[in-house]
Amino acid sequence: MASRSALAVSTFLCLAALAALSAHAADPEEIRDFAPPADYAPPNASYFTFTELRNIDVKQGQFANVTNVNVVSFPVLSGLGVANALLVYPPGSVNVPHTHPRGTETLFVLEGTLEVGLIDTTLPVPVLFTQTLYKNDIFVFPRGLVHFQINKSKYVVRAYASFSSTNPGLVSLPRTLFGVHIDPEVLTKSFEVSSDIIAKLSAVQP
Amino acid sequence: MASRSALAVSTFLCLAALAALSAHAADPEEIRDFAPPADYAPPNASYFTFTELRNIDVKQGQFANVTNVNVVSFPVLSGLGVANALLVYPPGSVNVPHTHPRGTETLFVLEGTLEVGLIDTTLPVPVLFTQTLYKNDIFVFPRGLVHFQINKSKYVVRAYASFSSTNPGLVSLPRTLFGVHIDPEVLTKSFEVSSDIIAKLSAVQP
Amino acid sequence: MASRSALAVSTFLCLAALAALSAHAADPEEIRDFAPPADYAPPNASYFTFTELRNIDVKQGQFANVTNVNVVSFPVLSGLGVANALLVYPPGSVNVPHTHPRGTETLFVLEGTLEVGLIDTTLPVPVLFTQTLYKNDIFVFPRGLVHFQINKSKYVVRAYASFSSTNPGLVSLPRTLFGVHIDPEVLTKSFEVSSDIIAKLSAVQP
Amino acid sequence: MASRSALAVSTFLCLAALAALSAHAADPEEIRDFAPPADYAPPNASYFTFTELRNIDVKQGQFANVTNVNVVSFPVLSGLGVANALLVYPPGSVNVPHTHPRGTETLFVLEGTLEVGLIDTTLPVPVLFTQTLYKNDIFVFPRGLVHFQINKSKYVVRAYASFSSTNPGLVSLPRTLFGVHIDPEVLTKSFEVSSDIIAKLSAVQP
Amino acid sequence: MASRSALAVSTFLCLAALAALSAHAADPEEIRDFAPPADYAPPNASYFTFTELRNIDVKQGQFANVTNVNVVSFPVLSGLGVANALLVYPPGSVNVPHTHPRGTETLFVLEGTLEVGLIDTTLPVPVLFTQTLYKNDIFVFPRGLVHFQINKSKYVVRAYASFSSTNPGLVSLPRTLFGVHIDPEVLTKSFEVSSDIIAKLSAVQP
Amino acid sequence: MASRSALAVSTFLCLAALAALSAHAADPEEIRDFAPPADYAPPNASYFTFTELRNIDVKQGQFANVTNVNVVSFPVLSGLGVANALLVYPPGSVNVPHTHPRGTETLFVLEGTLEVGLIDTTLPVPVLFTQTLYKNDIFVFPRGLVHFQINKSKYVVRAYASFSSTNPGLVSLPRTLFGVHIDPEVLTKSFEVSSDIIAKLSAVQP
Repeated sequence: MASRSALAVSTFLCLAALAALSAHAADPEEIRDFAPPADYAPPNASYFTFTELRNIDVKQGQFANVTNVNVVSFPVLSGLGVANALLVYPPGSVNVPHTHPRGTETLFVLEGTLEVGLIDTTLPVPVLFTQTLYKNDIFVFPRGLVHFQINKSKYVVRAYASFSSTNPGLVSLPRTLFGVHIDPEVLTKSFEVSSDIIAKLSAVQP
Repeated sequence: MASRSALAVSTFLCLAALAALSAHAADPEEIRDFAPPADYAPPNASYFTFTELRNIDVKQGQFANVTNVNVVSFPVLSGLGVANALLVYPPGSVNVPHTHPRGTETLFVLEGTLEVGLIDTTLPVPVLFTQTLYKNDIFVFPRGLVHFQINKSKYVVRAYASFSSTNPGLVSLPRTLFGVHIDPEVLTKSFEVSSDIIAKLSAVQP
Repeated sequence: MASRSALAVSTFLCLAALAALSAHAADPEEIRDFAPPADYAPPNASYFTFTELRNIDVKQGQFANVTNVNVVSFPVLSGLGVANALLVYPPGSVNVPHTHPRGTETLFVLEGTLEVGLIDTTLPVPVLFTQTLYKNDIFVFPRGLVHFQINKSKYVVRAYASFSSTNPGLVSLPRTLFGVHIDPEVLTKSFEVSSDIIAKLSAVQP
Repeated sequence: MASRSALAVSTFLCLAALAALSAHAADPEEIRDFAPPADYAPPNASYFTFTELRNIDVKQGQFANVTNVNVVSFPVLSGLGVANALLVYPPGSVNVPHTHPRGTETLFVLEGTLEVGLIDTTLPVPVLFTQTLYKNDIFVFPRGLVHFQINKSKYVVRAYASFSSTNPGLVSLPRTLFGVHIDPEVLTKSFEVSSDIIAKLSAVQP
Repeated sequence: MASRSALAVSTFLCLAALAALSAHAADPEEIRDFAPPADYAPPNASYFTFTELRNIDVKQGQFANVTNVNVVSFPVLSGLGVANALLVYPPGSVNVPHTHPRGTETLFVLEGTLEVGLIDTTLPVPVLFTQTLYKNDIFVFPRGLVHFQINKSKYVVRAYASFSSTNPGLVSLPRTLFGVHIDPEVLTKSFEVSSDIIAKLSAVQP
Repeated sequence: MASRSALAVSTFLCLAALAALSAHAADPEEIRDFAPPADYAPPNASYFTFTELRNIDVKQGQFANVTNVNVVSFPVLSGLGVANALLVYPPGSVNVPHTHPRGTETLFVLEGTLEVGLIDTTLPVPVLFTQTLYKNDIFVFPRGLVHFQINKSKYVVRAYASFSSTNPGLVSLPRTLFGVHIDPEVLTKSFEVSSDIIAKLSAVQP
C-alpha cells in the first residue's frame, strides 16, 4: 500500500548521497567482533599483534620520542575504543605542553623517574597539578586538558600511554601557536607581550 | 598457530558484507579532527564557512521560512554533533507543530517578539508550556517533543536554532497526519471525529 | 607542587554542585553488571523477572491496551538499553498515531492480523508505508517517526514491542495536539482549517 | 589566508585513507530516519517487514533452535539499536551457557515453562540466579554475562528475545572452550582437571 | 533457587559504593523528556527560558566578552547535548587562542565583521585556516582544536556560539601556559626560547 | 501560560523518582574536566596518581596475579573511559579463559615471553588465534571475546593491560561454569559429557 511520488524518489537519492557522505567518521560501538582487515582476507593472529615497539631507535635531543599504536598504525583497533603509545625521554628532554582532543591518557612509567604536569580549566585561574612519578606509577591526563612531562634525571626514562580513543589526536601547543604564522596582532594581544617576543617565539618553529 | 576452516572463510565473507552494510549510519564520535571533503582534496577555510544565510529570500505567507545548516547543506559538520537553522517569521505566521526525532533545539530570538509552545509526554494528560520570547531570549525544545512558534506581531521575527545532532530531522505534524492518505478509519478513531472532519483536514494538504 | 587559590576552592564547590545537578540523566553504558536495587540489598532472581504480563485485564473499546515493561516498571533495566511492551487490540481498535522520542520499536505479532503504518520525514511530502502483519511477523518503527496500528479483524490481536531505550517515551498525537489547549490561532493556521473544526477536535479530548 | 605545504597534502591523503579504514564499524546514533537499502532504491513497506518467522522448521534434539532477526538477516535495523530472536526448545533441550558480547537480552516466554540461569561477575565467587518462567514472563540477561535455558517439560517451549544491539553476537561456551583446539596445558591448568577429562570434553565438539 | 554467600553480600556493598561513586559524570542519552529542576517542583515555562542575554554589560578592552548559556547557568540543558554562548567583541579585541575540550563550536556572526582562525593537528606542521566572516556567516571549530577570533574593525562585533555539549569547557592557552607557574625549564625547552622571554610571558598573567 | 493539573504533579513526582533510580549507571561522556573526589574537597596531584603498583607481592602458583587499576581502585577514572591492570605470571602459570563484558583489552608485554589465545564468534565453528609475544609486543582482545594467556617459560612474565572502559569486568569461565552449582543436567547436555565428568570439573572449584 506504500505510495511515493517522483519527488520522493529524488529526495531519496539525496538521502542516499547523505549516506555516502556520512560513511566516514567514527569511534562507534562495534557491531562485529572486530573490523575486518582492509584487504578483506580472513585475519590471522598477526592482525592482532603489534611488534613495532621491539626495536625503537631513540633520537637524542631535548624532545621525547613518541611511537603511536593507534588505529592508523594498528588498524585492528578500529571501533575498539583504546590506543597506546610508547614514550622514550632522553635525559633532560621534555614532552612539550599539549592536549589530546579525543581521549583521556593514563601514563605508566616503565623505567626511571619522570616529572609530569596537568592544568585544569578552573576559571579565572586554572590549577596546575604536578607530580614526580617513579617506576610503575600511573598518572591520569583527562581528555582535552593541557599536560606535559620532563625528564630531569641523567637517565633515559620510558613510559607507556593508554588512551580512551583509537585516535586521540595531538595538539602540540608550541608549534600550533607559534609555528603556523598566526596574525601577530592576535598573538601580541592574546599573550600581552610585544611583537618582538612573538617574533622570537615564532622564529624557532619550523 | 592460528587455524581456519574453509567454512570460516565463507563466514568471514559474510562479515565483510556486513561491514559494507553497516558503513552507512552515524552521529558517532570523531576519530579525526573533521571528516575530509567528499572530493578528498585538502580543505581550505571555505570548507568550514557557511555563507548562504547572507541573503535569504523571505517568502511571505502564513508559514515560517526555515533554512537548515545541517550535514546535508554543510558537510563539514559530519560527525561533529551540532547543526543550526535560520528561521524567519512573516507577521502572523506559524511554525507548525512538529518534532525533531534526532535532536534537542535551543531557539535564540534575533529580532522581534515570538510566542512559543512545547508539550511534554506526561501521562495521561501532557503538559503545555508556553512563553513569550523577546530579542536575545533562548527557549529549549528537548529531543522528540512537539513544539511550535507563532509571530503574533506586525513585524518580521527572526530566530536562530541550535541542534544537538548534525541532522535532527523534522516531523511536520499537519502534513504527516493529514497529507499522506492514512486510512480514514485510523484517523476518525484516533481523533474521535467524523470522517467529514478528517476529509476537511486532508483536503488542504498537498 | 599543586597550588590553589581561595578562588579555585569556590570554583571547585561550583563544580561539585554541577556534579549533583548532572547526576540525574541517562541511558549510558554500564560500568557494572547491572544497577543494584534501589534498597541496595543484594538482588535475587526475582529482581531480573517481570511477571505482570501473566494476567492482563483487557479494557474493551476503540483503543489498544498497552502495558509497558520499561525502567520505571522494571528497574533492573536501568542502563541496559532495552525495554518492551505488551499490546492488546480489541476488535476494531486503534493504537493512535504517535512517536517514541527516545527509541526505535520492533513490533512482533503474537496473535491475529494487524494493519500497521509508518510515515517517514521525506520533504516536502512524507512517505507512508503500510503493511498487513500476520502472526509471527515483525515490523520496524525507527526512532521518532510517526506510526500507528489498527485491528480491522473481528478478533483480539496481541503484539509484543521491543525498544532500543529503557524508556522510549510516548508522544500521543491526538492528545498532544488537541488535548492541551494550544492557542486556536496556532492550530487553525497550522492545520489550515476553520476554528470550529479545531473546536470539534479539541472537544473530544479530556 | 589558509596556507598548506606539500607535506600537509600528503598528510591529508593519509587522513583520507584513515577515513576509508574507519568507514566500517558501528552501532551509532542515526542521522537519518533509517539506513537506505543496499540497492539504494526507494524502500517500500516490505523493507520494514520480517516474515521469516512464520514457518520455522524445528529441529528436534537436545539443543534449542534459534532464528536471529538482526542487522545481518534484517538490514533495516542498521543503526537502530535493537534486534530480536525466536527460540524454540524441544522437550529436554538446552540453550547452552553463552554470552552476548554486544548486548543485553530480555527473554519473553511465548509458550510453555522454561528454566533460566544467569551468573554475574561477583568476585571471588560469582552468583547464580535461576528462575522458572511461565508463559508471558520476562527475564533479563545483562550484556556480556553468562546465561542459559533448559526446557525440563514434555512440551515444546517458545520464547522471543529482544537485544540492545543490532548485532549482539554469540559466544557459545562449550564450543569456544572445547571445540577450537586450545592448547591442552591451558585447559588442564585452567579447569584444574586431568588431560583425559579435557580430551573427553573436546572429543564431542565438531 | 538463587544462593549467595556472606562474601557475595560484602562484594555487593562494594558495588553499591561504586554506584554512588559513578553517579556524578555525564552527557548521556536522556531517558526522560528532560531532567527535572533541582528543587523537584514541577517545572513551568520559565524553566525552559533563558533571559539573561537581554541586557549584557559590555566590558571595554582588548578581550572579547563571553556569556555562557550552558548546563551550569541553564540547568534544563542537562542531558540534552547542546549549549550556547554570546560573544561581544569591542573594537580591536581578541578572543585569545583556546580549545573546548568537550565540544565542537559553530560561530554565527550577529553583527559586524570578524576575523577567525582555526589550527588543525596535521603533523609535523599543523595547518592554519583563517577567514573573514560577515554578518550571518557561520564558521565551524571542531572539538578540541585551537581557534581564536579578532575584531579588526572600528565597531562592536557580536556573535552567537552553538556547542555539541552541554558544558564544552574552555582551555584558555595564554593563561594555561603562562599563568600557572609551570616549571620554567619545561617552558624554555618546549618553546625553545630563553628564560627571560618566558618570564615576560608569565609576568603579564594574573 | 503553562497549566498543570494535580495529576501532572503526581506524574512529575514519579519522574523525579525515576531520576533518582537512574542516577546510578554509566561510562558516559564527561561534562567536566574530571569527576570530583568523593569527599568533594579540591583535589591535589595525588588524586591523579596511582602508586600501588610499586611493590606488588607475587603469589606463586599456577594462576596469573592481576592488579586492577580501574574506577573502583582509582576513582579519578570515573567517566574517563580507560582503565589498566598489571599482570604477573609465575613460571608455568595461566590466566584462565575469560571475557571482559564491558571493554576491549590491549596487552603489552613488559618482561618475558608469553603465549596468548583469542577465540572469535565465527559460526558454526569459532576461530582460535594464538601468538607468542615477546617483550614490547602488544596483542588486542576485542570486547567480550574469550581469551587466555600462559607462561610456558621458566621465568616470571610481566604484562600491562589497557581497557576501553573504566570498569571492564571479568567473567572467569572455569569458576562461572563449574563453581556456582549450575544444574548438572544443563551442564551434561551443554558439554555433552557424563555427569561424573561434570562432577570432577565442579569438585575443584571453591
